[in-house]
This record gives sequence, C-alpha cells and structure tokens, in this order.
Amino acid sequence: MAGTDSTRTAAPTGGPAVVLVQPQLGENIGMVARAMLNFGLTDLRLVRPREPWPNAKALAASAGADTVIESARLFDTTPEAVADLSRVYATTARTRDMTKRVVTTRQAAIELNAAPASDVSQGILFGKESKGLHNDDVALADTVIMAPLNPAFSSLNLAMAVLLVGYEWYQARDLTSPSSMTMPKETRPAHKAEMVGLFEQLESELDACGFLRVAEKRPVMVRNLRNLFGRAQMTEQEVRTLRGVITCLVSRRRS
Amino acid sequence: MAGTDSTRTAAPTGGPAVVLVQPQLGENIGMVARAMLNFGLTDLRLVRPREPWPNAKALAASAGADTVIESARLFDTTPEAVADLSRVYATTARTRDMTKRVVTTRQAAIELNAAPASDVSQGILFGKESKGLHNDDVALADTVIMAPLNPAFSSLNLAMAVLLVGYEWYQARDLTSPSSMTMPKETRPAHKAEMVGLFEQLESELDACGFLRVAEKRPVMVRNLRNLFGRAQMTEQEVRTLRGVITCLVSRRRS
Repeated sequence: MAGTDSTRTAAPTGGPAVVLVQPQLGENIGMVARAMLNFGLTDLRLVRPREPWPNAKALAASAGADTVIESARLFDTTPEAVADLSRVYATTARTRDMTKRVVTTRQAAIELNAAPASDVSQGILFGKESKGLHNDDVALADTVIMAPLNPAFSSLNLAMAVLLVGYEWYQARDLTSPSSMTMPKETRPAHKAEMVGLFEQLESELDACGFLRVAEKRPVMVRNLRNLFGRAQMTEQEVRTLRGVITCLVSRRRS
Repeated sequence: MAGTDSTRTAAPTGGPAVVLVQPQLGENIGMVARAMLNFGLTDLRLVRPREPWPNAKALAASAGADTVIESARLFDTTPEAVADLSRVYATTARTRDMTKRVVTTRQAAIELNAAPASDVSQGILFGKESKGLHNDDVALADTVIMAPLNPAFSSLNLAMAVLLVGYEWYQARDLTSPSSMTMPKETRPAHKAEMVGLFEQLESELDACGFLRVAEKRPVMVRNLRNLFGRAQMTEQEVRTLRGVITCLVSRRRS
C-alpha cells in the first residue's frame, strides 16, 4: 500500500506511535498531527482512512505539522498497523464487556516512559470519530486507556483525545519546574540588603508622618509591611522604583 | 469519540471561570464550551468576541454543550470580566518581558483546587487565536500558566489550550484509580482454589504426555507455567474455559 514501509523502525523521538483506525475526516487527521507534534510525537499510522490519502484538508489542518502528515503510513488492517509494536494501548470513552486492564491517561504515560530502552516499540489506538474502536481492536491491545472525564459529557473530539495522551506522555518526561518566575533580562531579583534599605526608608518616613506613632503596635505593623512587600518577590529595578515613589510622595508633603 | 452516558450524573461544578479575550471564531468558542463541559466547567465569559453573539456556529461546534454556550456572559473589557474574581491566571505560549510568577498547567490545577471553599472565585484568561493575550491582560493576572510543550512546535488551538487546563483541573480532584480491571458483569475474578485446580489439571496432563518428564527441570517448568497463567488475572469463567480447552486437546490425543 502507498506509504507503507514495514522496514522503518520506531520514531526517533522514542515516543509511542499514534494509530488512527478508520478516521473519517481529513481535517481531524490534520488536527491529530498538530497535537502530536505539540508533544514531539511523529509516528502517525492510518488504518483505512475514509477519505483519499494524501489529503489536502489534513495538511491544512495540521497548521505546520507537515512532517507528521507526510511521513504518515497507511495500513489495511489494525493487526498490520501494530505488527512491529510490542505494547499497544487502546483508548476508549466507555467500558467494554471484556476482562481488560484499564488505566488512566496519566498512568499510561508513566508506563510508556518506564518501558526499557530496548523495548520502545509502543503504540496507541484511537477509533473513528463517530463510534470509537471496534471491540476486535480493543482485544488486540494490552491495556485500555480511559481519560477521567465528566461522566455526563465525555464525548471528546479525536484530536482532543490524542492531545491528552500526548500531553501526559510529554509531562511524564518533562523537567519544567512547576513554578518559576520570569523577569526582564536587564534586571535581577533584589538582594536582601536592597529590600532592607527599602524597608528602612519606608519605616523612617512612616515614623516621620506619624503612621507608626503607637509604640506597642509598631513592631507588628512593621512586620506586616515587610511581609507584604516581601511577598511581591521584587526585582532590583522595582526596589529602586518604589524608593523613588516614597521619595516623591514625601516631597509633596514637605513642600 | 462516542461514549457519553446521559444517565450518569454531571461532574461537580464550581470550577474556575474560563475568560476568552477577543475570540475570533464562533466555531472556536463552541469547541471551548465542549472542552469545558468535558471537565464539568460551565462559567464561560467572552470579552468582545469578533463575531456577533449569540452565534449559531458556536452552538453547533459545542456538540451538545448548549448550556455552557447559552449561559455565557459578554463583557466589554477584561477588567469587567474578572471584576468578581479573587484569583486570575493568564495562559500564554511565550514568556513575556515582565516580572511574573509562571506555573505549569498541572501546578495551576493544584492551586485552583487548594483554594479555600470561601474563596472559589477564580478564573483563567485565554487570548485571541492569532496573537494570544495582550500584555495588559497578562498584567491583570496573578500568575501565568505555561503548558510544557515541544519548544519547536508550541502553537495550540484555543480549544486545545482550554482542554489542557480543564483536564488538569479535573484530574487534580478526580479519584479514579490509575489502574483497574473491567470484566463482564456475569463473572468474577477466579479464586485461588480454582486457579490451583486448573494448574493441577494442566500439570497432570503434561506429565501424561511427557512434557514434564525431566524430573530436575519439572519444578521450575511448573513454576513458570503457573506464573504465566497467573499474570493473566483470569476470571472464574476463563478458568472454566481453559479447563475445557485442556480436556478437548487431550481428547484428540487419546482418540
């Protein structure tokens, strides 16, 4: 069949193959390719797509993920599409009347990433837009993936289903810190000495204007103000700005 | 994908508001509504959509999430859209030249779920399809959300961006076991006595046909076979089936 190359090995990323079984719309295949490349997945396999292939609508909807579309391979049957894979997951939105191991999308991602390097030939089956996978395709898989979804509204677009699997696969190997701080290149986080300089200027001015005149309340008021400004995690530049703000404010009072 | 079960109850709502700032296409608003309801989110707010509202294409693309579309609220400015919220996140695909706390989608979900019940007025800003959020809108937010994505291909469709945030929000409160087993209703997991019955029948027949004739190898071969069948986590029904298979196989040998 056109595009079939059974000699090719797994994608260079080492990510799982995405196998679309009887996808109906070229546009959806394109959106799948885009979602795949968002997470570095490139091995796309199509089992009997309904529309002719290659498909212009698929290419347009891929929004730049041309390489994934152009290297996609066609197969006549699901067994042929997964022949070189050693581990296959089937995505379904509903439980089937089968004795079958079921994992969440997140658990599948952990398992896909935990596979030994010698055994990276993994793939994930996605069914047609209207009906999902046939039970025979589910039976071919080792494990079923069910994304936890609102049980009263669990109809996912095909590309959305691929996106969630790709996303979890990528997160399981991603080392991005859960929380960080961006700042303009020309500045840096303020040093503590700079913060204390700001605090002392402010407190001195607040003493002068009478804001801190109740002696027994002064320590807790000072602490609260220092905590407030401390939480802002200021840059050196912002400290200088605030010191200018204070100077400006008191200059009006003095004039 | 097919699979919505309308007899099942809806997921609990009370999740964050989804605020689309100047969305360009009605169809995308519809896909956003669908992605929201997939995770039980219902508070949709629109700041100056480009197309007229209500919008037939939005309703069609929502694929059944009519309630989200019909209860969506329109605002003239982003400050008005977030006026009643106490905590606002801004989604961006690129870092901005601002001093700003940045979290992953997963970290944002943890924080959204950790907010005290008395302070659930939270929202997430999403920018227009072509350019994302304006810096003034980002500055209005407490924290920026950046989903870890393939740095070489990080262009996400608007509804895909909403899907990832909704997905993580839902996972952070979802109690689905990461791994479980489905099976037909009329059966149950096999008891150990049933498994041992199967093993003994098999080993007895393998003794009879000479498969286990090397005495010093017999214990390890028996153990390997028991492990192999044990891994299959069989149902009571499957044990009976396999016992029938063995009986059938030996009947041909004997005849």
